[in-house]
Amino acid sequence: MLLVLSLMSASCVSSSLLALQQVLDSMPPVRAMQIRVRDYRDGCLRLAAPLAANVNDKGNAFGGSLASALTLSGWALVTLQLRLAGHDAEVYVADSHLRYLSPVHEDLAAQAQAAPDADWATFLSTFAQRRKARIAVVATQPGVDGRPAAELSGRFVAFARG
Amino acid sequence: MLLVLSLMSASCVSSSLLALQQVLDSMPPVRAMQIRVRDYRDGCLRLAAPLAANVNDKGNAFGGSLASALTLSGWALVTLQLRLAGHDAEVYVADSHLRYLSPVHEDLAAQAQAAPDADWATFLSTFAQRRKARIAVVATQPGVDGRPAAELSGRFVAFARG
Repeated sequence: MLLVLSLMSASCVSSSLLALQQVLDSMPPVRAMQIRVRDYRDGCLRLAAPLAANVNDKGNAFGGSLASALTLSGWALVTLQLRLAGHDAEVYVADSHLRYLSPVHEDLAAQAQAAPDADWATFLSTFAQRRKARIAVVATQPGVDGRPAAELSGRFVAFARG
Repeated sequence: MLLVLSLMSASCVSSSLLALQQVLDSMPPVRAMQIRVRDYRDGCLRLAAPLAANVNDKGNAFGGSLASALTLSGWALVTLQLRLAGHDAEVYVADSHLRYLSPVHEDLAAQAQAAPDADWATFLSTFAQRRKARIAVVATQPGVDGRPAAELSGRFVAFARG
């Protein structure tokens, strides 16, 4: 029984990630950045994008592409959590703080999770009650020696559709 | 004499804006967003980009494109001020705070200027002395009724080349 539930859940995640990719592909600037949904595991959603499509005049990752990938990883994470809970919502970024810590010479790899002081249970129950909720997310672009090359702290707001 | 100086200065601004456009066009993600240098007047640098190339799944401006255009308007302003002062520098965004206040249903129009507590004379003299300097910039995307639809407060750092 547990195995069946676990397989069902994995299948829900896979189909939701596919749906997220379709939304990303429907946005011309995101398509141009070639941003791909990579995976979702242990509360962390990862996106990837090739450096070649996101390079600046200095040969490293363009700050706007880093901002876009980090913001989208947070947006995708919040959207995924709502879908897995059976909700149909529009998710927007409300605000964000970005720190660019070192140049990125590799492909982009944004990974998002709930902020340390945020929790999905509270977010989802607020959404179910008020048809609107917000949550804080942190997203990082890995750098060298385990330190992030860029970081985003952002708040995302979800509105029930219809 | 004043008229000649003023004409020379206008010509310097024009050629610097053209050089900035060439740098923007050399970056694949910026070219995809079709970001254009519009003008520079009274300390304010403006960029523009068509909504069609920057639209999200909801039919309004993609947050990553707004972040990119606002960040680039700040980057272009700092680069321009350094060029007009005769400096050759690499300019990077160090950090930024973005607020998305209302959906943008029009073309993107980022406008950047020095933050209220920043001043170009101090920035340029620090750069001349230390070959490195940073300055705070504010950039906005206009919204309805004179209120911004999105705002960026960011710090940019310049390093002397060579």
